[in-house]
Amino acid sequence: MKVNRKNYRTVWLEGSTCKMINQNLLPHKFEIHEAKSYLETCSAIKNMVTRGAGAIGAAAGFAMAQAAMESSMIKTSYRREKQLEKARRNIEETRPTAQDLFAATARVYEKALISAEEAKNEAQKIADENVEAGRKIGEYGAELLKDGVRVLTHCNAGWLAFVDWGTAISPIYVATEQGKNIFVYSDETRPRLQGSRLSAWELFHNKIPHKIIPDNAAAALMQEGKIDIIITGADRIAANGDTANKIGTLEKAICAKYFGIPFYIAAPSSTFDLNCPIGKEIPIEYRSEDEVKMIDGIDRTGKLKKITVANPGSEALNPGFDVTPAELITGYITENGVIRTIKDLQSPRFLVDN
Amino acid sequence: MKVNRKNYRTVWLEGSTCKMINQNLLPHKFEIHEAKSYLETCSAIKNMVTRGAGAIGAAAGFAMAQAAMESSMIKTSYRREKQLEKARRNIEETRPTAQDLFAATARVYEKALISAEEAKNEAQKIADENVEAGRKIGEYGAELLKDGVRVLTHCNAGWLAFVDWGTAISPIYVATEQGKNIFVYSDETRPRLQGSRLSAWELFHNKIPHKIIPDNAAAALMQEGKIDIIITGADRIAANGDTANKIGTLEKAICAKYFGIPFYIAAPSSTFDLNCPIGKEIPIEYRSEDEVKMIDGIDRTGKLKKITVANPGSEALNPGFDVTPAELITGYITENGVIRTIKDLQSPRFLVDN
Repeated sequence: MKVNRKNYRTVWLEGSTCKMINQNLLPHKFEIHEAKSYLETCSAIKNMVTRGAGAIGAAAGFAMAQAAMESSMIKTSYRREKQLEKARRNIEETRPTAQDLFAATARVYEKALISAEEAKNEAQKIADENVEAGRKIGEYGAELLKDGVRVLTHCNAGWLAFVDWGTAISPIYVATEQGKNIFVYSDETRPRLQGSRLSAWELFHNKIPHKIIPDNAAAALMQEGKIDIIITGADRIAANGDTANKIGTLEKAICAKYFGIPFYIAAPSSTFDLNCPIGKEIPIEYRSEDEVKMIDGIDRTGKLKKITVANPGSEALNPGFDVTPAELITGYITENGVIRTIKDLQSPRFLVDN
Repeated sequence: MKVNRKNYRTVWLEGSTCKMINQNLLPHKFEIHEAKSYLETCSAIKNMVTRGAGAIGAAAGFAMAQAAMESSMIKTSYRREKQLEKARRNIEETRPTAQDLFAATARVYEKALISAEEAKNEAQKIADENVEAGRKIGEYGAELLKDGVRVLTHCNAGWLAFVDWGTAISPIYVATEQGKNIFVYSDETRPRLQGSRLSAWELFHNKIPHKIIPDNAAAALMQEGKIDIIITGADRIAANGDTANKIGTLEKAICAKYFGIPFYIAAPSSTFDLNCPIGKEIPIEYRSEDEVKMIDGIDRTGKLKKITVANPGSEALNPGFDVTPAELITGYITENGVIRTIKDLQSPRFLVDN
């Protein structure tokens, strides 16, 4: 996608440096973050310099490739393998919920055991596949979007959450390219406001008509008949179709069911975890209460500031994700087509081996 | 309720000045705002220096009494009445959704036609009735709360939203007085964060165990079985039981139904509008998009700051309230008892004439 007329990917490898758009500074500043070692990439993932299922996956793959390059000097193969194993664990510990992270790390780890070059190629392949999957998700998803449709999305599953194109927003980009008028309501998505910061920024730069809404307003808009379809991304999809995604997704899905509005999950097949039978077994990341009690933004002079917004003496709870049961999900938009039943979900036509 | 060991009401009249706790500065600063004329009280209501159904009602009553005092010099009774009518319209235009505002203004207006003294007495009576109603709502509501119960509340319908005691939080205060252990989850309640600022501040100062949660996390907690009962306030209740309350209430009610959790509305009978047949006819206030795109709080040095948190080029939508259909509401906790059916709702046992 374009930023100021220049094409960018969200995350990429240059030599042994993993470069990424610093999403913690958006929408206020557009800056490229450089992670010069695999450990720097790990902390960029952990601190959400890059975030979103697909971008995390690609970054994790690049981190594993960086680790392979860094350990390529080690002569003893036993010590080298130990080092790679440790790197793999470190990468996997950055974010516990996202399936893409584990899938990418595992794929690059296998190649890293052979050579740093193979690891690097595999990581690049993962990033390229991610771009291709995003584009295809857009094409299949666009078939669901009639001209004039109003879409609600939650969090950011746009191109910033992937390497390019994205998942939930990709169908909107493709449908718009096809000449359809699409209007987007973007949940602001507390506590980290990915909707009002990232989705709104993406949509704005790509000239898609949209409005930010407080998370609390979604049901009221559904009740008023202002939302025709809901599409969100996914961080992990269990074998029975239960889907972990950004906290609040479950609320939207329950409300959609109540009002009879179709609710779709858009995700590449790498997000499906067939080893996880049901949603309850997906580990949920609890993040710092500071994300709820403090907010950053820019003041009148354009300076970045962090302020306390809540009662300082009170504690806050901050689950990063929730699990939406399959019964609330109308379908899954994947790079291989739209899946509508659990049976299809497990068919090899839709899923790559992961 | 007590603030730093001193008893306070949320809003009161001293001479011809309407005094109120400045809720825009909470939880960061505790300050008494003085509105010296009825127009100053109007702008305090409009700017949410005082807010919450009951506090708005009492403040509107005091504003009408101030207008009566201010126009008492006018000799011609025709011109005096014109002046009072104009004041009534100005007061009513401050906030369009809250039923208590209209009820209180009308009551004091009638007395203002007689004399400023009568108007003042009526306004004081409204405030006192509000305190008494809050206490009784607490007593009836406490019967619904078993020892060890975990309550979710949305926005602030505590004593700050009333003259004292409050509605949704009053049962928690009374049950705690009775020696029960009650735990409260407080939705932060975007965009104005009344939950993390006001409810959390109230609960903290009254030593009630509680945690702030992002609005998005409520359904996930319900799914985990961590919420036993939900109680919120109301801004207006139609004759069929449909209830307008802070934006997001509808989402919580839909989720509560889905998970089989009892969902109660706590409100005095003055909040019931029997002239309004159904929820659809309750006017919904749309507020400035700045409330979504900008947030205030204190920085590291303790200074109040307002920062921009959203993509500056994007527009935001900011409905202040939503309407929860009666079918999602388990019961209404009033000062006259708990109402469980629409039939009871319209019985004179429960409702005062308004």
